[in-house]
Amino acid sequence: MNDTFLRACRGEKTDYTPIWMMRQAGRYLPEYQKVRGNVTFLELCKSPELCVEVTLQPVDLLNMDAAILFSDILIPIEAMGARLEFHEGHGPTFPEKVRSQADVDRLIVPEPDEATDFVMETIRLLRSELKVPLIGFAGAPFTCATYLIEGGSSKVFWETKKMMFTQPILFHKLMDKITQCTILYLLAQARAGAQALQIFDSWAGILAPCDFEHFALPYVQRIIFKLQEETDIPIIYFANNGATLLDMSISSGADVIGLDWRINIGEAVRRVGQKAVQGNLDPFALMLPKEELRERIKGILDGAEGAFGHIFNLGHGIHQFTPPEQARCAVEAVHELSSR
Amino acid sequence: MNDTFLRACRGEKTDYTPIWMMRQAGRYLPEYQKVRGNVTFLELCKSPELCVEVTLQPVDLLNMDAAILFSDILIPIEAMGARLEFHEGHGPTFPEKVRSQADVDRLIVPEPDEATDFVMETIRLLRSELKVPLIGFAGAPFTCATYLIEGGSSKVFWETKKMMFTQPILFHKLMDKITQCTILYLLAQARAGAQALQIFDSWAGILAPCDFEHFALPYVQRIIFKLQEETDIPIIYFANNGATLLDMSISSGADVIGLDWRINIGEAVRRVGQKAVQGNLDPFALMLPKEELRERIKGILDGAEGAFGHIFNLGHGIHQFTPPEQARCAVEAVHELSSR
Repeated sequence: MNDTFLRACRGEKTDYTPIWMMRQAGRYLPEYQKVRGNVTFLELCKSPELCVEVTLQPVDLLNMDAAILFSDILIPIEAMGARLEFHEGHGPTFPEKVRSQADVDRLIVPEPDEATDFVMETIRLLRSELKVPLIGFAGAPFTCATYLIEGGSSKVFWETKKMMFTQPILFHKLMDKITQCTILYLLAQARAGAQALQIFDSWAGILAPCDFEHFALPYVQRIIFKLQEETDIPIIYFANNGATLLDMSISSGADVIGLDWRINIGEAVRRVGQKAVQGNLDPFALMLPKEELRERIKGILDGAEGAFGHIFNLGHGIHQFTPPEQARCAVEAVHELSSR
Repeated sequence: MNDTFLRACRGEKTDYTPIWMMRQAGRYLPEYQKVRGNVTFLELCKSPELCVEVTLQPVDLLNMDAAILFSDILIPIEAMGARLEFHEGHGPTFPEKVRSQADVDRLIVPEPDEATDFVMETIRLLRSELKVPLIGFAGAPFTCATYLIEGGSSKVFWETKKMMFTQPILFHKLMDKITQCTILYLLAQARAGAQALQIFDSWAGILAPCDFEHFALPYVQRIIFKLQEETDIPIIYFANNGATLLDMSISSGADVIGLDWRINIGEAVRRVGQKAVQGNLDPFALMLPKEELRERIKGILDGAEGAFGHIFNLGHGIHQFTPPEQARCAVEAVHELSSR
């Protein structure tokens, strides 16, 4: 068992800096495309055997130090009773937008072992196969709420902020319900065998700091405090585009702070202090010629020198047009350049 | 002549904090929609009389302390020989994407007084009508380059970064050409009568700090240094989503640093030091009930206390669904709460 990733999360000494990549089980891999060719995205998410297969692909092919469960942040939200659709070439869609008290009341807090049994089964199967730690995950309540309110992805999040600013009580009710659901869902993942849990706050960065503090952070804190009461596995919180939210991300209670590529990692390490950081290569920098890619990686490793712990990662999901060879080159460079 | 805005740019004492709003001449105003109903967006941009009319609307209706020329950042780029289209409901499009050396070579550096005479004519007409200062503007080279390379707006800017990372010399050539064009264009605006110039770097925030420093900042600096050599009007640089680029924005040489809504203005003021700041209300916070809107505005005014100079603004363009009454309420609140 290669536990380098878990040791880095806990700030323990490691022989080298572990690496995994957000969305590492994904479309840039021909092996993934092959599996995906026969099923829809939602069918894939709900087939434990196929999820196991695509989760393992990057670990085996690219030598990653951690696996992340193949799933989607909206899977537990669908289980709340929100009809979810994925149309090829578009993002996810919730045709029944959540905008009123009745819409919020209609959502349920499901029993995750039943409603998302396929996720838990995937985790159990993966644990028997993996030689590296398995990361489970969920979306942060704010990010999940935006999809429900907007009815899918958004560019400007007008409806989300309109609800926040003109119906704050309703907004908080929705956040509370998603939070309850997320706590149960992540606890179930931990029971099934997840060895770390990442909370993805993909849209936190659209909020002014004062609004993040009021409308989003308390729910992340509630989840993390509850998880820490019930389990002792590391929790990673990743607020995308969250440079100005960094101090509040730290106060989320997470063990590991995810960083996107917009922030200098040296500066982030100084601000984060006694917690591990995860990041932060621009995913598109994987296009750099190999020597320059190595230099850029060295810059990040050097910047993270002195961190409580450092898990190398991209600052966002790997892009679908990335040549797998470039990703492999990055993994090798991280392992080699960080070898102690 | 109400010169409060210009005084604030220069860090001089003012009776109150001046306010204008990015995209204040725009779709949220029924008066604008009426003008726009009869012409396409590009026709509007190229009709000095109509541009004057819509530029004046928010100044008169909402009591703004500055006017901003009605135009589009891509107007001078079209004048470089790039065919530009606006299709209703979509963003701007350049059907002939700029991806190769031949594509870059094909672009020209036009004489702005000829190629964009309608812009200069608009400025001259506006100056004879306005009782508040007139702001001219251009896009920053990086932002303009993304539109040419992607062929329009983008979500992830894959092609832009691919060119940066795999054809850096070509990318720099494109940036150089846009920079030459932008310098001439802004100097022409100043000659025509613009009393301040804002450089909009709408997409700066997609860059890692090290890439911004290398690929974008030097061109902004070149523009600003040249403008300051030839004119003495205030220059505003606005790097959207640029919290982690703030120190470099300061080193752009601009007199005023624009702030989006993601950063706490008090923190920004401390970092900016001896330059004025402009911002930074979340445009969607204009939806807040009036009392809360006033409180939020007071928070920003308090945060900017001690700034070298402060121009109140939104952290991004005003949204098309904003009730004009709410914008008016914000202007009144700024004037009243900042009255010294």
